Amino acid sequence: MTAPLAIRRLDAADQGFARHLDHLLSWESVSDDAVNQRVLEIIKAVRERGDAALVEFTKQFDGLDVASMDDLILPRERLELALTRITAAQRQALEIAAERVRSYHEKQVQDSWTYTEADGTVLGQKVTPLDRAGLYVPGGKASYPSSVLMNAIPAKVAGVPEVVMVVPTPRGEINELVLAAACIAGVDRVFTIGGAQAVAALAYGTESVPPVDKIVGPGNIYVATAKRHVFGKVGIDMIAGPSEILVVCDGQTDPDWIAMDLFSQAEHDEDAQSILLSPDAAFLDRVAASIAKLLPTMERAEIIRASLEARGALIQVADMAQAMEVANRIAPEHLELSVENPEQYLPQIRHAGAIFMGRYTAEALGDYCAGPNHVLPTSGTARYSSPLGVYDFQKRSSIIHCSAAGASELGKSASVLARGESLTAHARSAEYRIKP
Amino acid sequence: MTAPLAIRRLDAADQGFARHLDHLLSWESVSDDAVNQRVLEIIKAVRERGDAALVEFTKQFDGLDVASMDDLILPRERLELALTRITAAQRQALEIAAERVRSYHEKQVQDSWTYTEADGTVLGQKVTPLDRAGLYVPGGKASYPSSVLMNAIPAKVAGVPEVVMVVPTPRGEINELVLAAACIAGVDRVFTIGGAQAVAALAYGTESVPPVDKIVGPGNIYVATAKRHVFGKVGIDMIAGPSEILVVCDGQTDPDWIAMDLFSQAEHDEDAQSILLSPDAAFLDRVAASIAKLLPTMERAEIIRASLEARGALIQVADMAQAMEVANRIAPEHLELSVENPEQYLPQIRHAGAIFMGRYTAEALGDYCAGPNHVLPTSGTARYSSPLGVYDFQKRSSIIHCSAAGASELGKSASVLARGESLTAHARSAEYRIKP
Repeated sequence: MTAPLAIRRLDAADQGFARHLDHLLSWESVSDDAVNQRVLEIIKAVRERGDAALVEFTKQFDGLDVASMDDLILPRERLELALTRITAAQRQALEIAAERVRSYHEKQVQDSWTYTEADGTVLGQKVTPLDRAGLYVPGGKASYPSSVLMNAIPAKVAGVPEVVMVVPTPRGEINELVLAAACIAGVDRVFTIGGAQAVAALAYGTESVPPVDKIVGPGNIYVATAKRHVFGKVGIDMIAGPSEILVVCDGQTDPDWIAMDLFSQAEHDEDAQSILLSPDAAFLDRVAASIAKLLPTMERAEIIRASLEARGALIQVADMAQAMEVANRIAPEHLELSVENPEQYLPQIRHAGAIFMGRYTAEALGDYCAGPNHVLPTSGTARYSSPLGVYDFQKRSSIIHCSAAGASELGKSASVLARGESLTAHARSAEYRIKP
Repeated sequence: MTAPLAIRRLDAADQGFARHLDHLLSWESVSDDAVNQRVLEIIKAVRERGDAALVEFTKQFDGLDVASMDDLILPRERLELALTRITAAQRQALEIAAERVRSYHEKQVQDSWTYTEADGTVLGQKVTPLDRAGLYVPGGKASYPSSVLMNAIPAKVAGVPEVVMVVPTPRGEINELVLAAACIAGVDRVFTIGGAQAVAALAYGTESVPPVDKIVGPGNIYVATAKRHVFGKVGIDMIAGPSEILVVCDGQTDPDWIAMDLFSQAEHDEDAQSILLSPDAAFLDRVAASIAKLLPTMERAEIIRASLEARGALIQVADMAQAMEVANRIAPEHLELSVENPEQYLPQIRHAGAIFMGRYTAEALGDYCAGPNHVLPTSGTARYSSPLGVYDFQKRSSIIHCSAAGASELGKSASVLARGESLTAHARSAEYRIKP
């Protein structure tokens, strides 16, 4: 017998609602001096001593009895073996998911372009893939095969020739589903290392681990801190905050469905955030009743309870227009529009990582196999950033090819502007190209 | 009478060349605890005391005698006044440059897309501009009107409704060209504040300064440090290192032109880097002679000398194929292909911020008015990043709208994968949508 769950109820009409909402959304990641210090030491050791440092840290942190770096390399055959160790249903589900993720991401591929001006000057943009990408995959319980697909497939679709994956195997625990997903996603090389040492190895390279150009994938505070420190030497993806969902419902969806959609976010961890908006107060009551009814049946009931009590909310809004305003204010990672004719609201949505439209589109479908990426901007960063995509593994080079006539004309403007900035070498370099 | 300039000569055939090149390219920005501490204090003060803190810091750091925030706001009319205070030639050059930059960047606009699957499920990507962008413009000598165009125009082309510019006016110095460029570029609001306090104001907002979603633009070490600290609350562009140029020449361009192209980079500051590659040793000698001849005629001769001696190099390569290899290793910010038929080398170039093709395409033309952006990835970061562009002011939201039939099918795969990850709320949320 446990206490009834206390999820907060808010009304957007209340005075102080804006302040209350700000408080509910506020999240600042902890920057811990001790973690920073430890991570800097680990990075330094890996830069200086390479493989030897990786072997030591892996013994120490992962409790692995390894003699040399050779014991921390998984050949491609081991990934293929994993495919035979999972169930047929699992293999089929992974393959369906991979195929759908690949199809969707192929639409994101950007191509080079050029155009020629009247005087023969050519301008354009050349698009190329990164040479090598690094994929961090957490070990143990937080090890998700779906994340392997979502991080590796966009890189391969972008044309990255080599995708290197690191995944720790604490006390020798290997997750066969993760290796199978790596095999299906086309990961090229796998090292069973983790933590800040794996991030350092990917950034700087060691005798065995090749240096990559960008590191993506989730990890604990040591991994996130190490990614921050190596940023600049290599590219990194976003440092993710806790996962969140905002469900907007017109009151006509089965309240059990909505309760379960809220749970699916809350079960990630105690800091995850699940919020429901509805103009229908009675519906909020029905969802609260569904939550109370279903919670005891959940395997992760305690995590769900802690998350909903700490950061969840059922919010009454005046109407759907206000719901859209609040949604834009939140700029949620996941926005579920569980309403009739959701298209009508799409033009009003400015900020969201992914938009799940209609009563059938559970967020969980997008997490695994709908096709779009499940690596999404959290904590309001959808105001300025995007889902992980093929564009994260391609970069652009500007192309400028001036004809003699074009250079002569441009040289005149460049000269005036350069002299206005007192940059006379710029001016004279341009002036050399002006026809006499 | 000054000592002859000593620019280093290297040969790619020499043993140890790779190591020597690595050393020449190495650049790590200084992370100074005192700067960090000061910046954190400034950010805290602006968050806590808003406008009052901005006024105090501006008095203190910029030597301005201001009574209130009202004295630090430039209305749009002031920008229009600036247009009348510059020369007709300057105004025309700015307008030509702005128009060309706008035309080029319009090609970068990305549009939303969707596609419908056989069962009626709709997938897609919605592209939206940021709500508000902040543009940092340095004051005093490093204040470049061209940077205002290059940072503001992509934001306006992306459709950002409000571009807010900050520019310090130390001791009251106002750069009319900068204000005129802001007017032409369509900047919406200008505050005459600078330093870490301006970055903090843009990130968190004050009574007068509206909070923005992303901050772009160059600045000194305080500005760069502040941008790093507010990253996450807002987006930022790259933290730029010193500017660099790599010229590849087949030996057939006028050596004076090449010398001046190298100077145009070196004159930025002592840390700037100018490197020339050629398979023609005699040509390297001729360029060295041009450098010696032209250097005494340059207004910024001492900066150019210091830069070329500290970080410049004339490098002999075996052939053009090796030149391309070295260019990819360097991944330069600016790559000038001063060669016959430069198109033939384009497929081999994987990493460069901007590629200037042919003998007429001086880098200086690209800096001002060719059209592509002059904000480019430095210090080898072209391996994984791109010029500033319209894409930096747009973001994407994934769209998923499952039909009842689509959700039922997807639910089956999602359920298997979610249970494989022990996320049973995810599984049950998906299973609700499976048709019985």
